[in-house]
Amino acid sequence: MAVEKTRKRLDPATRAELILETALGLFAERHYDAVSVRHIAEACEINAGLIYYYFENKDELLRQVLARAIVQLQDAYAQGERRALGPAQELDLWLKVHVPIAPRIISMVKIMADYSASRIRNVETDQVIRDFYAREQRFLEDCLQRGIAAKIFQPVDVARTARAISLQLDGIFYAAQARGDERIAQDIGNLCAIVEGLRRV
Amino acid sequence: MAVEKTRKRLDPATRAELILETALGLFAERHYDAVSVRHIAEACEINAGLIYYYFENKDELLRQVLARAIVQLQDAYAQGERRALGPAQELDLWLKVHVPIAPRIISMVKIMADYSASRIRNVETDQVIRDFYAREQRFLEDCLQRGIAAKIFQPVDVARTARAISLQLDGIFYAAQARGDERIAQDIGNLCAIVEGLRRV
Repeated sequence: MAVEKTRKRLDPATRAELILETALGLFAERHYDAVSVRHIAEACEINAGLIYYYFENKDELLRQVLARAIVQLQDAYAQGERRALGPAQELDLWLKVHVPIAPRIISMVKIMADYSASRIRNVETDQVIRDFYAREQRFLEDCLQRGIAAKIFQPVDVARTARAISLQLDGIFYAAQARGDERIAQDIGNLCAIVEGLRRV
Repeated sequence: MAVEKTRKRLDPATRAELILETALGLFAERHYDAVSVRHIAEACEINAGLIYYYFENKDELLRQVLARAIVQLQDAYAQGERRALGPAQELDLWLKVHVPIAPRIISMVKIMADYSASRIRNVETDQVIRDFYAREQRFLEDCLQRGIAAKIFQPVDVARTARAISLQLDGIFYAAQARGDERIAQDIGNLCAIVEGLRRV
């Protein structure tokens, strides 16, 4: 009865958010395949039918879980994108923004790997993942390009350096889980020092 | 009947190998939790009971799958560990050895992430993963240290640089799956160029 009352108080947008947040946690801990709509409903203390009211099917739920997590990351990143700072400080701030939001990135990294390793293919989900990495690459290339133009950075190969920074971030968040050594702040600091090393001396 | 004949022809060591190889493929595609001993038995075209004859339980099977994959990687890496070459070439060769064995590393990377994200904890499996990364870190530190002592490399921070190279490798293999962009050879080449950049000029 208490649950029933709580349920009635949630407006549709809040409930959809709650479902997506719960699904994110479950998909990250286990695997998309191993988590049923019923599991998610139980964790949300609602009826599975209500999930289908909001989401057409589990594929659509996965796509929205990823899309929402990416929007949230990009909101956090936006705090690091401060053109007024100049390209070197902007890049440094953007890298450091990853530290406080690390738990969410680790979940996303895990879900994207599971999705990609599985045989499930969804054109829209593929696009969400591609867009995320394309945006990251563009941001990094833009900072490097401006830094080189302003003679702050050495004239490195922009595309290759941006790719290496982006892969280093993937490695840091992958390792945080797979190695379980909790060194994210230190590893991001190390990456900031590497980027700092690109400056002209 | 044909299956029965094939089964009889396999000696125990070969059959155990077949079970481990099949389990590796299934665990990598799906998730440890979502793959039952029955699934593995069906894929091997044997009875599930026979799997329990070789392996105590699924946890033990997972540990042996990882331990075997790591031994195979280390056999491949050993080809890159050629002290006679000198530290810079040795490091370069070791990095390039990753390219032909990439599919196996991708599977391992996926299984280790699933295992670590799950609530399953097995002291021996944790140790297998820790040893793998500790050995990698030691090898990288050793190459860098010798290269610095021989005045081939700049005097970089050995532990931090080794960690960054190791994370870049994780990132490359994670991304190969999650981004699905199949750029391993190019990314390893890029990493070799970064390491080459550590040389004194």
